[in-house]
Amino acid sequence: MIGLSRLSMNQATVSQLNLTQTIQLCLEQEIPSVGLWRHRVAELGISESAAAVRRSGLHVSSLCRGGFFTHAEPDARRAALADNLAAVQEAAALQADTLVLVSGGLVAGTRDLGLARRMITDAIAALVPRARELSVRLGIEALHPMFCADRCVLTRLADALDLALLFPADTVGVVIDTYNVWWDSQVAADIARARGRIAGYQLSDWVVPLPRDMLLGRGHLGDGSIDFRLFSQQVLAAGFDGFIEVEIMNQDIWDAPASQTAATVKARFAELLG
Amino acid sequence: MIGLSRLSMNQATVSQLNLTQTIQLCLEQEIPSVGLWRHRVAELGISESAAAVRRSGLHVSSLCRGGFFTHAEPDARRAALADNLAAVQEAAALQADTLVLVSGGLVAGTRDLGLARRMITDAIAALVPRARELSVRLGIEALHPMFCADRCVLTRLADALDLALLFPADTVGVVIDTYNVWWDSQVAADIARARGRIAGYQLSDWVVPLPRDMLLGRGHLGDGSIDFRLFSQQVLAAGFDGFIEVEIMNQDIWDAPASQTAATVKARFAELLG
Repeated sequence: MIGLSRLSMNQATVSQLNLTQTIQLCLEQEIPSVGLWRHRVAELGISESAAAVRRSGLHVSSLCRGGFFTHAEPDARRAALADNLAAVQEAAALQADTLVLVSGGLVAGTRDLGLARRMITDAIAALVPRARELSVRLGIEALHPMFCADRCVLTRLADALDLALLFPADTVGVVIDTYNVWWDSQVAADIARARGRIAGYQLSDWVVPLPRDMLLGRGHLGDGSIDFRLFSQQVLAAGFDGFIEVEIMNQDIWDAPASQTAATVKARFAELLG
Repeated sequence: MIGLSRLSMNQATVSQLNLTQTIQLCLEQEIPSVGLWRHRVAELGISESAAAVRRSGLHVSSLCRGGFFTHAEPDARRAALADNLAAVQEAAALQADTLVLVSGGLVAGTRDLGLARRMITDAIAALVPRARELSVRLGIEALHPMFCADRCVLTRLADALDLALLFPADTVGVVIDTYNVWWDSQVAADIARARGRIAGYQLSDWVVPLPRDMLLGRGHLGDGSIDFRLFSQQVLAAGFDGFIEVEIMNQDIWDAPASQTAATVKARFAELLG
């Protein structure tokens, strides 16, 4: 039984709203937590964003996102690191439970998955001291294998977890997103193995057929193929006690009124996890 | 060094051609082997198809495909089994090295990956006696995780291999398709573990961005993200000594003249694997 008291609205689900509107929506809908995106935070400014969430009393379950570490040019890698250091600082200011990391695809001009993975490991190692200093927890997310080439070479929870395990648990964990990992026959074992490392948990459904733009192919909980009750039981059994984000990227949902989207999010969460 | 003497043209790469035309193309282009599809075999008739390939002297590296075992209704499961028994008989008549199995997605109306996997295991167990009798080798193929819901719940080489290992090696193996498994950080280990079980090896490239129809998103070797030399070295090091199929499903390629497609297939194979 997971109650609505653990629901967090990821801002990407209502990406038509700015930060102020998203906060307002959560307050109106009595959703206690929010997952934020950096471009919306930047729009309002980090100080005002941090003040706004503090005034609202909302919990911040995540800041999305850092990462994209895999670049051929040292200058580009340095720029990525600088941007990620800024993201760590933003996550600290927002008191977010985790800074979500989408690590990056193949290095341009190469087909070397190992090279990309090593670059990601080095970049996270370089981020860790500052994250520790500011008590920010990095959350490494595995993306669906269909994003391997261009967005994230970490394609299984096992990949993200094996990387996280190289660093202290309070500084580096994993973010588990159902849409990205539901298909993996080993995911239950990896969830159990992730005990103490689960920095975030995000929900959206896999719908068939996959919409034309595969970045926007996610569905409301219950509209697709994922068994959210079973999956969530596994995540909770592994000790995760944080807020559970609903993060749905879908143009049709963005075109709907945000209040209607929030109502559907709450209803499905209560029905499928409650 | 892999020579063109090991190249096999999968019929799906030139799907605009019928069986007779495909055979003619291979002879003209001096491609020594062909991978066949059942609907094209049915079009000509199984006896005439078998006679045609025998007359041609071409090797038949695979027959595509059996599978789709996951059905809620017992009648539908029985019909699938009957169709697969027919496919075994066709593979025997064609002297194909393997009958490729695409096992099926979630059972309609369920979200139970375990149920689908058990159904597949049972169906293959039911096929094995007839396959043994006719000396046909079943080749279980893992499909890309983006096809998990609707086409194949076996999404990693590890899944296909673990299933194959339940049965005798000369009757059940795995088909390794680069497009489906290239992203998996464990695939090298699983290829090594598949020694003695590799019933088929198919090549096509992962291109970015993924074309609109994800079933037709494959590219010519070298146009995408996959390191074919490294991958093929691993497959050969695991003892695979059969023909290597190029199987590219792509509307643009189907719209091109078949002789041009065959020339590109040969040139890229020689360049990237030779």
